[in-house]
Amino acid sequence: MNENYPQILEEIYSETLGLSGKGKVAAYIPALANVNPKRYGIAIQTLQGETFQIGDANIPFSIQSISKVFTLTLVFRELGEALWSRVGREPSGNAFNSLIQLETENGIPRNPFINAGALVIADCLVSHSPNPLAEIVNFMRELSDNPEINFNEAIAESERGTGFRNAAMVNLMKSFGSVENEVNAILDVYFHQCSLMMNCLDLAKAFLFLANGGVNPWNGRKILTSSQAKRVNALMQVCGLYDDSGEFAFTVGLPGKSGVGGGIVAVIPNLLAICVWSPELNERGTSLIGMQALELFTTKTGVSIF
Amino acid sequence: MNENYPQILEEIYSETLGLSGKGKVAAYIPALANVNPKRYGIAIQTLQGETFQIGDANIPFSIQSISKVFTLTLVFRELGEALWSRVGREPSGNAFNSLIQLETENGIPRNPFINAGALVIADCLVSHSPNPLAEIVNFMRELSDNPEINFNEAIAESERGTGFRNAAMVNLMKSFGSVENEVNAILDVYFHQCSLMMNCLDLAKAFLFLANGGVNPWNGRKILTSSQAKRVNALMQVCGLYDDSGEFAFTVGLPGKSGVGGGIVAVIPNLLAICVWSPELNERGTSLIGMQALELFTTKTGVSIF
Amino acid sequence: MNENYPQILEEIYSETLGLSGKGKVAAYIPALANVNPKRYGIAIQTLQGETFQIGDANIPFSIQSISKVFTLTLVFRELGEALWSRVGREPSGNAFNSLIQLETENGIPRNPFINAGALVIADCLVSHSPNPLAEIVNFMRELSDNPEINFNEAIAESERGTGFRNAAMVNLMKSFGSVENEVNAILDVYFHQCSLMMNCLDLAKAFLFLANGGVNPWNGRKILTSSQAKRVNALMQVCGLYDDSGEFAFTVGLPGKSGVGGGIVAVIPNLLAICVWSPELNERGTSLIGMQALELFTTKTGVSIF
Amino acid sequence: MNENYPQILEEIYSETLGLSGKGKVAAYIPALANVNPKRYGIAIQTLQGETFQIGDANIPFSIQSISKVFTLTLVFRELGEALWSRVGREPSGNAFNSLIQLETENGIPRNPFINAGALVIADCLVSHSPNPLAEIVNFMRELSDNPEINFNEAIAESERGTGFRNAAMVNLMKSFGSVENEVNAILDVYFHQCSLMMNCLDLAKAFLFLANGGVNPWNGRKILTSSQAKRVNALMQVCGLYDDSGEFAFTVGLPGKSGVGGGIVAVIPNLLAICVWSPELNERGTSLIGMQALELFTTKTGVSIF
Repeated sequence: MNENYPQILEEIYSETLGLSGKGKVAAYIPALANVNPKRYGIAIQTLQGETFQIGDANIPFSIQSISKVFTLTLVFRELGEALWSRVGREPSGNAFNSLIQLETENGIPRNPFINAGALVIADCLVSHSPNPLAEIVNFMRELSDNPEINFNEAIAESERGTGFRNAAMVNLMKSFGSVENEVNAILDVYFHQCSLMMNCLDLAKAFLFLANGGVNPWNGRKILTSSQAKRVNALMQVCGLYDDSGEFAFTVGLPGKSGVGGGIVAVIPNLLAICVWSPELNERGTSLIGMQALELFTTKTGVSIF
Repeated sequence: MNENYPQILEEIYSETLGLSGKGKVAAYIPALANVNPKRYGIAIQTLQGETFQIGDANIPFSIQSISKVFTLTLVFRELGEALWSRVGREPSGNAFNSLIQLETENGIPRNPFINAGALVIADCLVSHSPNPLAEIVNFMRELSDNPEINFNEAIAESERGTGFRNAAMVNLMKSFGSVENEVNAILDVYFHQCSLMMNCLDLAKAFLFLANGGVNPWNGRKILTSSQAKRVNALMQVCGLYDDSGEFAFTVGLPGKSGVGGGIVAVIPNLLAICVWSPELNERGTSLIGMQALELFTTKTGVSIF
Repeated sequence: MNENYPQILEEIYSETLGLSGKGKVAAYIPALANVNPKRYGIAIQTLQGETFQIGDANIPFSIQSISKVFTLTLVFRELGEALWSRVGREPSGNAFNSLIQLETENGIPRNPFINAGALVIADCLVSHSPNPLAEIVNFMRELSDNPEINFNEAIAESERGTGFRNAAMVNLMKSFGSVENEVNAILDVYFHQCSLMMNCLDLAKAFLFLANGGVNPWNGRKILTSSQAKRVNALMQVCGLYDDSGEFAFTVGLPGKSGVGGGIVAVIPNLLAICVWSPELNERGTSLIGMQALELFTTKTGVSIF
Repeated sequence: MNENYPQILEEIYSETLGLSGKGKVAAYIPALANVNPKRYGIAIQTLQGETFQIGDANIPFSIQSISKVFTLTLVFRELGEALWSRVGREPSGNAFNSLIQLETENGIPRNPFINAGALVIADCLVSHSPNPLAEIVNFMRELSDNPEINFNEAIAESERGTGFRNAAMVNLMKSFGSVENEVNAILDVYFHQCSLMMNCLDLAKAFLFLANGGVNPWNGRKILTSSQAKRVNALMQVCGLYDDSGEFAFTVGLPGKSGVGGGIVAVIPNLLAICVWSPELNERGTSLIGMQALELFTTKTGVSIF
């Protein structure tokens, strides 16, 4: 089927360009607000080693919440099932930055992909890693097979300057005793992971281990067990797109994760990973063109896990 | 791989019997409360026409919320995408019978598998079918290839006598204008569909069209388009087990639907449908042994959509 | 101070007429929607037997939620402190017709003046009275010293035809076991009490026992003990105007009760009761002119309980 | 009636001592947890200059949330009605430290007596005062006619060390733009005001201006206009005891304010102020003996605003 990917990417690209201008670029920090809204790239990385791309697939962008999959992976690998006493694995039914459930459910976040859950994961990293930022960045370099990956300190700094909602969450969890470390230490990890700069191809490569039974295809290292990799995929399927998770399962039918930088990555187990980037978001913070492109991709290829 | 199913069923059965006594049979109506809590059956129906079963797989039980998949199918087939203006397709994050989201979201239920959503589906059936009860029962007979399927009028009557929470929901939706018909007409359909009596084999057979691209394998009739069938599977994956949906995706990794009668049905696209029945429920209303049995099934067979 | 009341009423009347047209008449039933929005009356009844009135003080209107004070009084007299196991006495912080708190607080309404609480009171009346409707209407005739008071059956019927939200509440409470009687029997009492037709003078007279230590001034009969009368006043102060209760305490500073028919009654203990009627409501369902008139009344007279 | 106060205080004291041991001392900071739970004092200060007291009325304690009345007074005097664009004046219906309403109501607290509201008031002080802490402490010395009043720095420090919930609130409000200053500057004022050490007599004296039309009786200075003083009383009546506000209005019938240090102060307009201190709290954070003592006080004296 692979021979069709270039053609399919062309079709998707031309059929979705018309959506440009219908969404809104995230504007809460200048570094995101200043992105050219017309940027649009797609990259596919197959398990057989083929790479397909179109548009701005080589321009790095702020991966934002997509980073939550990687920090979850690091902590899941470290803590195993013990992790699930710290964070749930159910969809939240609330906005990604809501404090309501946190208050009514004793400070335990519903899942690792809403902000509160990712902050608990960051707290675990602070507890278990001598240098969490180095661990994250090295992990990203390994997974994407790209030693150039790095944080964008200006973005991390901007996040800190406006991240009162996340600070509220950490403080609320601290009041429940559900995080262990200093508020600022946790936030520092979180704001940095959100600032990671990667392009579509980097992200497609970096997600490929989840299509590969947990094994990093670039060096053969076992990142997660096969069972754990399946479970991360399952979590992405159920909670990976916040309040668009049902919509994404319904229209795209693949495990995936989005970020407010405009990226969405999806996984087809045993086959490939695909990343789309277009900064204009719908009302729920999902890339408008990205979602449409992935729907077209599964429609045109006939691929679905369902 | 099929040759192993009898052996796998034996193993699952013996490994899960020890959980007996740890859950609680649904007690809100006598017809459910009086079920023998030790009942336990499993049935597998493959697309290749093979049937495997163990235990009480031939004893009919009240399918309860599993019926929501069938009424959704009937209405989805009838209304197509127009259906989604009436009901959402996101996980709710709340209990299956909560009215809170309904109040804060203008009477539009989050998805067709929480009670409020199923009541909207029942309302659609009342509007579009000259005889909704006959349509449902005939549909079940066709899907399960069993002309004996029927409602249990005593259960339907009991449901009506205690169904104040469902009556509250319909009235609340009526106040928002999100249902069209008389409150009692809607409830009558709903209480009847919950009372359908089917056994594990009936249910495994009746779900097989969802593993078969929407085509009823027993008569070759197209029930849903292939795309629609995938979408029903996706919805089951994300919302099929209420507040256990994330847990079910995480541990079992298959689209499925549960009922408080103790049944759970799961679908492996292009392969089979499997139904487990054990009436003892966990705190979230899911069959305790059923969930464990399905987790073992995917572990032992290595089958997963992820 | 009494000699000033006619002058004060004149001033209030002329100073508030300009607000006409800024609110919205309740429109959920025709009988309310068809009221002339320009109607405006005020009546004062003092303990010394003096009566002052201006404008449309003799035109009966639908008292709606003001009736909740009377049914509470009937049930409080009958059950005494035992009543408070059935309904709370705290402000709700939610809209008068919200089901959210009811769901999260096990079906026990926060206070007797939100709809759910009044429905519990109606349930008590059904349980304890051989003929609740007759008891209510006779009580109103006694309190207002007017044998002509009656229900408006057309309004009661309209309420029933649109009262799905109230039906939802009763059903939800029924599911929690917090009401005892048939849903329709409870609603019948509630819809009738809301339909009572009284004019400003009737209502000022009917509230006077609450300024009089619980004694009906027209026949000397003890309706409530002095302590109970104070407590009903305290409840009105804290919860009598739904989400405007704080605002009303702040700007008017008197115990009072409003209805969506546009009436507001307030009590000055040991002195008088005053009723204003103007059908145009603010966003929280309180008479816009009525609230302003009462603020002017306490400002001009210097009277306040604080 | 004054001649009875000593006798009445004796009676109250002996009738309520039996409740000792039924509540729980606030334990979230050592300085509060270490208070002798048996402490119990009452002080009355009348407008006629008489003072009555019993028990531990001269032992200073941490006034905690009672301080909110004083900071509100300072800011209300400064900003006048403009204050109410920053904070509401409705009961919250939620716990004093809940973030839920804050999230759903765009960061505007319901009233100045829940924590979020008091933090907005603290923010106003930081904005408008060159030295907020000095202003607060000087104000307390003036109002209580006691130049010894001071903060307890150890308590303020403890509050800071455990005040994650309050930090969460300020951060959440900061994310909505509803506070202007640095998070720590706001919290510093708040934690200090809570640490003020005053005894029953100090507090009875310091509240007397609210019974005196806004005029400080010790130096004749107008603190608030008469109308403003009434309004502060009205707010205390409706929201002064958090989730016990309705209960307090119902059983005591006076405007009042409580703190988790175990103090409750109540005002009888034009007559007196009374303060009770007993550190054992009920489940809603109100002094158990304090509430009972005030109920007995109004019962025995027959005094009530209702």
